[in-house]
Amino acid sequence: MRLITVKSKGLAHSSYYLSDGKDALVVDPRRDCQVYVELADKDCATIQYIFETHRNEDYVIGSLELQEKTGAEICHSKETTFKYGEHNLSDGETFQIGKVKVKAIYTPGHTIDSMCYAVYDTWSSDEPLLVFTGDTLFIGDVGRTDLPGIDIWETMSEHLFDSLHEKVLPLGNQVLVYPGHTAGSICGSLISDREMSTLGYESLSNPQLKLDKAAFVKNRLDNVMLRPPYFRRMEDWNLNGAPLLQDHSKPKPLNLDQFEEESNKAESIILDAREPDAFAASHIPGSINIWLDGVSFFPGWTIGYDQQILLITERQEDIITAVNYLHRLGYDNVMGYLCHHIREWRNTGKPIETIGTLSAVELQKMLQKNGPSVLDVREEHEWNAGHIEGAERIYVGLLNEEMNIFPKEQPIVTICAWGGRGGLASSILKRKGFTKVYNLLGGMNAWKSLGYPLISET
Amino acid sequence: MRLITVKSKGLAHSSYYLSDGKDALVVDPRRDCQVYVELADKDCATIQYIFETHRNEDYVIGSLELQEKTGAEICHSKETTFKYGEHNLSDGETFQIGKVKVKAIYTPGHTIDSMCYAVYDTWSSDEPLLVFTGDTLFIGDVGRTDLPGIDIWETMSEHLFDSLHEKVLPLGNQVLVYPGHTAGSICGSLISDREMSTLGYESLSNPQLKLDKAAFVKNRLDNVMLRPPYFRRMEDWNLNGAPLLQDHSKPKPLNLDQFEEESNKAESIILDAREPDAFAASHIPGSINIWLDGVSFFPGWTIGYDQQILLITERQEDIITAVNYLHRLGYDNVMGYLCHHIREWRNTGKPIETIGTLSAVELQKMLQKNGPSVLDVREEHEWNAGHIEGAERIYVGLLNEEMNIFPKEQPIVTICAWGGRGGLASSILKRKGFTKVYNLLGGMNAWKSLGYPLISET
Amino acid sequence: MRLITVKSKGLAHSSYYLSDGKDALVVDPRRDCQVYVELADKDCATIQYIFETHRNEDYVIGSLELQEKTGAEICHSKETTFKYGEHNLSDGETFQIGKVKVKAIYTPGHTIDSMCYAVYDTWSSDEPLLVFTGDTLFIGDVGRTDLPGIDIWETMSEHLFDSLHEKVLPLGNQVLVYPGHTAGSICGSLISDREMSTLGYESLSNPQLKLDKAAFVKNRLDNVMLRPPYFRRMEDWNLNGAPLLQDHSKPKPLNLDQFEEESNKAESIILDAREPDAFAASHIPGSINIWLDGVSFFPGWTIGYDQQILLITERQEDIITAVNYLHRLGYDNVMGYLCHHIREWRNTGKPIETIGTLSAVELQKMLQKNGPSVLDVREEHEWNAGHIEGAERIYVGLLNEEMNIFPKEQPIVTICAWGGRGGLASSILKRKGFTKVYNLLGGMNAWKSLGYPLISET
Amino acid sequence: MRLITVKSKGLAHSSYYLSDGKDALVVDPRRDCQVYVELADKDCATIQYIFETHRNEDYVIGSLELQEKTGAEICHSKETTFKYGEHNLSDGETFQIGKVKVKAIYTPGHTIDSMCYAVYDTWSSDEPLLVFTGDTLFIGDVGRTDLPGIDIWETMSEHLFDSLHEKVLPLGNQVLVYPGHTAGSICGSLISDREMSTLGYESLSNPQLKLDKAAFVKNRLDNVMLRPPYFRRMEDWNLNGAPLLQDHSKPKPLNLDQFEEESNKAESIILDAREPDAFAASHIPGSINIWLDGVSFFPGWTIGYDQQILLITERQEDIITAVNYLHRLGYDNVMGYLCHHIREWRNTGKPIETIGTLSAVELQKMLQKNGPSVLDVREEHEWNAGHIEGAERIYVGLLNEEMNIFPKEQPIVTICAWGGRGGLASSILKRKGFTKVYNLLGGMNAWKSLGYPLISET
Repeated sequence: MRLITVKSKGLAHSSYYLSDGKDALVVDPRRDCQVYVELADKDCATIQYIFETHRNEDYVIGSLELQEKTGAEICHSKETTFKYGEHNLSDGETFQIGKVKVKAIYTPGHTIDSMCYAVYDTWSSDEPLLVFTGDTLFIGDVGRTDLPGIDIWETMSEHLFDSLHEKVLPLGNQVLVYPGHTAGSICGSLISDREMSTLGYESLSNPQLKLDKAAFVKNRLDNVMLRPPYFRRMEDWNLNGAPLLQDHSKPKPLNLDQFEEESNKAESIILDAREPDAFAASHIPGSINIWLDGVSFFPGWTIGYDQQILLITERQEDIITAVNYLHRLGYDNVMGYLCHHIREWRNTGKPIETIGTLSAVELQKMLQKNGPSVLDVREEHEWNAGHIEGAERIYVGLLNEEMNIFPKEQPIVTICAWGGRGGLASSILKRKGFTKVYNLLGGMNAWKSLGYPLISET
Repeated sequence: MRLITVKSKGLAHSSYYLSDGKDALVVDPRRDCQVYVELADKDCATIQYIFETHRNEDYVIGSLELQEKTGAEICHSKETTFKYGEHNLSDGETFQIGKVKVKAIYTPGHTIDSMCYAVYDTWSSDEPLLVFTGDTLFIGDVGRTDLPGIDIWETMSEHLFDSLHEKVLPLGNQVLVYPGHTAGSICGSLISDREMSTLGYESLSNPQLKLDKAAFVKNRLDNVMLRPPYFRRMEDWNLNGAPLLQDHSKPKPLNLDQFEEESNKAESIILDAREPDAFAASHIPGSINIWLDGVSFFPGWTIGYDQQILLITERQEDIITAVNYLHRLGYDNVMGYLCHHIREWRNTGKPIETIGTLSAVELQKMLQKNGPSVLDVREEHEWNAGHIEGAERIYVGLLNEEMNIFPKEQPIVTICAWGGRGGLASSILKRKGFTKVYNLLGGMNAWKSLGYPLISET
Repeated sequence: MRLITVKSKGLAHSSYYLSDGKDALVVDPRRDCQVYVELADKDCATIQYIFETHRNEDYVIGSLELQEKTGAEICHSKETTFKYGEHNLSDGETFQIGKVKVKAIYTPGHTIDSMCYAVYDTWSSDEPLLVFTGDTLFIGDVGRTDLPGIDIWETMSEHLFDSLHEKVLPLGNQVLVYPGHTAGSICGSLISDREMSTLGYESLSNPQLKLDKAAFVKNRLDNVMLRPPYFRRMEDWNLNGAPLLQDHSKPKPLNLDQFEEESNKAESIILDAREPDAFAASHIPGSINIWLDGVSFFPGWTIGYDQQILLITERQEDIITAVNYLHRLGYDNVMGYLCHHIREWRNTGKPIETIGTLSAVELQKMLQKNGPSVLDVREEHEWNAGHIEGAERIYVGLLNEEMNIFPKEQPIVTICAWGGRGGLASSILKRKGFTKVYNLLGGMNAWKSLGYPLISET
Repeated sequence: MRLITVKSKGLAHSSYYLSDGKDALVVDPRRDCQVYVELADKDCATIQYIFETHRNEDYVIGSLELQEKTGAEICHSKETTFKYGEHNLSDGETFQIGKVKVKAIYTPGHTIDSMCYAVYDTWSSDEPLLVFTGDTLFIGDVGRTDLPGIDIWETMSEHLFDSLHEKVLPLGNQVLVYPGHTAGSICGSLISDREMSTLGYESLSNPQLKLDKAAFVKNRLDNVMLRPPYFRRMEDWNLNGAPLLQDHSKPKPLNLDQFEEESNKAESIILDAREPDAFAASHIPGSINIWLDGVSFFPGWTIGYDQQILLITERQEDIITAVNYLHRLGYDNVMGYLCHHIREWRNTGKPIETIGTLSAVELQKMLQKNGPSVLDVREEHEWNAGHIEGAERIYVGLLNEEMNIFPKEQPIVTICAWGGRGGLASSILKRKGFTKVYNLLGGMNAWKSLGYPLISET
């Protein structure tokens, strides 16, 4: 038995390929799914089944894409009326891959259709060896329960408790845990950065599993997390089946004049995926700045699905990375990319703009005088754990709304943890007409390291 | 915490790199140890410790080599008087790598100096998360106990039972298991081809762990395994410290004439690492044939450490693979390789020889008439599980001794499982002057698949 | 100006990518044309033009395929009524790529529609810098003139002389030469293995260019070369436009049972692309053996376009190489490949067969007694330069016809230069029912190196 | 015959590997010479000779390094008393590599010991095929003649004229030209960006070859070029033999604290090899900024050989590139590199600084008011071709001298062609205590593209 974890950076998503050397299965494939086909080709194995742990909401699932390439059958819960897929599973259904048995376990909580999949190596034991837990159980955390709806948040939290304690943990302490996300995912805020665990070790160490039902439910209801607008498209596509990626969706290399011409179209948006420092020092007016890894998530807050995306990256080899990230979020509309380095753009005298950068030391000095407005764009729980006195908080993903609280002609500093979201926020402020925008490089990490004063909400 | 398994093919050896992002440790490094350095460089981590699970006997341990490159400290048991290494460990000693705690556990049995290393992620729990078990516990099997000596075989078996049941299993069912070998190793005959397990799952599924002490000891004493002659050098080097690999040990590309000249020297041996079928059809007289993956083990039976090795491979890129395999077995004397394809050798009219090949169908027909002698070169346990009537068995590694039982002028067929060891045996017979040698391609696998009659020893 | 030569191994075909950093052109693209797209992407250049030197007959030209990917315009001679392409060129037409000027030169001889393309770097001189000569002029040789038809062979030879001496050489001694083929091509038998030249150096060194017209024409008419049957499809496709390669033409990995099932279909042929030695020692009955590089040419003689090809290679990574070779010859019908190594096939006891191999030493001894029939499968000019007494010659590509001159039950040895075509010939003989087939490994190269007697035709 | 050009980016140096399939030669190897060894290994060829075209002054020649690895013999002119090398060549000496003949041609001018090497493919002609011209003849330009000394500048110019017209061009119009440098080299200011030529084509197009002797000499004397201080070390090492690169010279990955500690040492200098925009937005105080490709040359002006270099790059994979560039200039003292991204440095609150960036549009506006001082750091010939009114010129390589003409508290803008040398200049000004430094991104390229006013010197 061979198990390979395929991770999607940024999304912190884990999918799995499991093979007995002849047949194979995939759990929660991503949309750029050639990777699983290559694993199977190398194994000389045939992918027989695709198991979905639930209707995912944070990325486009690649089940149909992989089925198109392999003919594998798709399995998911019968609790949701999926418009694709051969198997609508009930609790306890089993599948066989050679000597490997897979048992579907119905574990509602994160969603109404959440399934875990226990795997048995029947050659060596009748007890389960491992379990794919999707967004039900993470290493160090459990799934969020707010997504099915505010009205049933409490009910779903109770379901999750029951699923964990009555369905998952009883599989046995010996069982290895393979969850749907690793640290950094929007689907769990306390996920450990350790990537191996067992049900036994989770029982010992996962704080959520030590709570009684009432405390667990309260904890879930207190766990307010972000729900980006792009989730709606994910839910829709993952319910009805996402469109297949087409070769013609490959973006075009554009030379300077072609890029400028495209960027002048009303439907275009320039996504500049360089580091925030390079962006600050020079960028094309109107660009949105999201550092490369951030492209795996932040477009979902800031770019419309009806916009035509034009990409700028530091190096040409980054284009394919950015495009894959965008595909995973359902952005199939990347028209092209600036083929030459932005150096060449500058050399022609085409327009460029700058944003200021500050270090924590500089900001602290400025604030002691009559300093700039401070806009903290982090999430609420980060803010609560410590922020700068006098700062205002608006989450970076919500900046596109009107922001009349800050005068556009006054200096304003954007702040996040290290400067990445600050770069995005700065670029949005510039688009909105703010003229004196600074980004705090090093962010609150640097501020805290220097021991500067913090306000905490308790 | 990041854990990477570095496997050495053929040897079926697993070594481990564990990092907390700043500091790292390595367990049982192999001799071509650049791989660990690159892992640490990529992590920006410093390798602080090298842990040896025991004085290994089946490969050259790379501790000194890795120490030379990194300055890491070497840790092993105090039970053996190692001539190198900073830490001679007692049971229960602990080391800290950031939040990661490593606890040395003295587990004699496989050797007198065997250690397991339990790892604690102290940030999340006081209980252990995983254990490096070396050759004490494998997935589906346990270590052999004969190596410390026939006279103390029984005592060591008792020790192993105690180590497993009193030291290892009590760490808890939740503990992940990372052993020193995977399936195919000479250090355990029943190792599973599954590569993940836990102590809990081993308790449920590992047949050796279900035996009581008396049955366990008897089972160990019945488990007769090979002890290749090269083990002596491994034990010596791993006790006293192996010589460092030197750049000048890189073998030279030799053209046809240079190769021929070198091969005529008395101390030279040609190691032809092509497939047994290509070897059979044409090879340089006097060559030893070991298929590429087999080079990770079989030279230890058949090539002297005082011989100068000349390599032939199917493709030039295989040379580095073969040389690494040889280094792991302590063969630093690979002088050079035939730079051109053996095609070119043939084109010049230089001498070539052939060996016959047979399929199981052909052999079966020949045996019905007055057929050839049949030499089965497999291990005893394979032979016992089924062999051809009238065959003689001599293990391939022991063929170098005189073999007067077969007349050199009569046809003789070599048989193993699939034809690999048969190829080696054939090449040895040719060197000894046998003139009508055949290799059974497909081996006993094919014979059994065809349902031909078998003799089993019970 | 950047010029990249893209070579197609086996075919010995050279195509060219020339870029001024913004715009680019391609000369004689091959069908697997992603390589040019990647060169242009890296350059940030747009491929504007595709120039064909003539209607090629030895491979499928990739013009339409490349046009589909890039939108480039296709240029070729107006002398042939091509069914595709935007530009039907007259002598002297010019194109501009930035400062680079391309001038089409009508040079009939090899074909009626042959063009050379002279390139001018107008920034530095009005004189030409280089010329793409297609199959008109090679390094050390000139094009063959028989392909347009036996009836106009002499006329075409005269045309070629005039084209060379009145059109090409007058471009100037300083002009660099970039021909359509390198050594080993079926389109020129005396091509040098040196890959750089100039018109001046060719004037000094190319034997064909030193002849007067009468001698040149006679030499052309004496230059009898092969015309493989697959040329008909090439000519048809290159006239009318080849079908686009489709993703679904990617062959499938087949496991042992699937492979056996497919191979039993009447329309199937197994193409075993391993070395002739491995093939000799064991192969699936009925397989055709063509060593990997030979797949770039020999299927055109021996495999029908209506057959379904099943591939066997030594290593999985060879599959893509073999499939590209087959596509270049117009074989789009590769259904699948044996995913496992042929070892696994043997291990199941599925049928395998063998062919004998001989060294030149062995053959010479056998011939001194009442030896086997000797079948030389080389080309006429190779035969004329020296062959074994008593041998018969039938070119390997013509063996599919009935061969009643040899009795099927008698030993027969196939001979070529080194054993590659001999392997193919052996495999064909086996398919035809010959029972005692041997292949001479080392071939006539070895025979000659050993100084054995030769018959030469003068 | 197989000829491979090995280019060294940045230096615009070309070296050559020429093989007949059995023996090989290398012309002007670079110091990181493993590339030639790998070419020869792949060819199964033995490198027999290393030819130096002259005592190079702009990079460390790798002859001794390559000799150490291969045993090849080193050949150079007898006119210089080299302290290493087997062959001190006179005009006309010949060497044979199989059928390839190499003839040394004494061509003084660029240096007193300059040699060209004509290559004959004796199998095909007695006339030469190609010539390695070193720094005697480039494509579109000829070598500089000032380096042997101001006092003999005129004499050397006359020598060069004679060498070109009496030794090189007479080889014949058909001869292919392989020079020592391509466009961008400090050894020739007008080298074409085209990389193929012949003596015939150079006669037609190279402006220097059209001049009569008097005009040629005058032109040489007018051709004032830079002579960086590092040339002294190159000349010394290339005369006496450079030290061998040692494995221990591989730089160490340093974590944040280690890097900070090392950077505080008096002998340390931080070389930040990121783009000038990222550098401007945030860098460690005291760093020198040279963009990655610029590291191939500019350290030679700005970093002392007694300094300990600490590297910062945008990505970890750039380290090896930067280190190779430094080795080629004789900097073997790269102690280590910042292993983490500079993001991490900022996150800890460690000190960072900024430089301003300007676009040409912004600068033009500022200059219309009472603008900043303008420091143009380009070479004289660039300045003469057009500069901004009121600017001062000091070449970037000479900024380390005292610069009292600018007040340190006033705004100052650095200007070069595109912003690369401007970044270096800015970083030097910051080190010298200037507080309001700006770098013009897009440089004079942008200024000119926008049609802003220029002063030209005629």
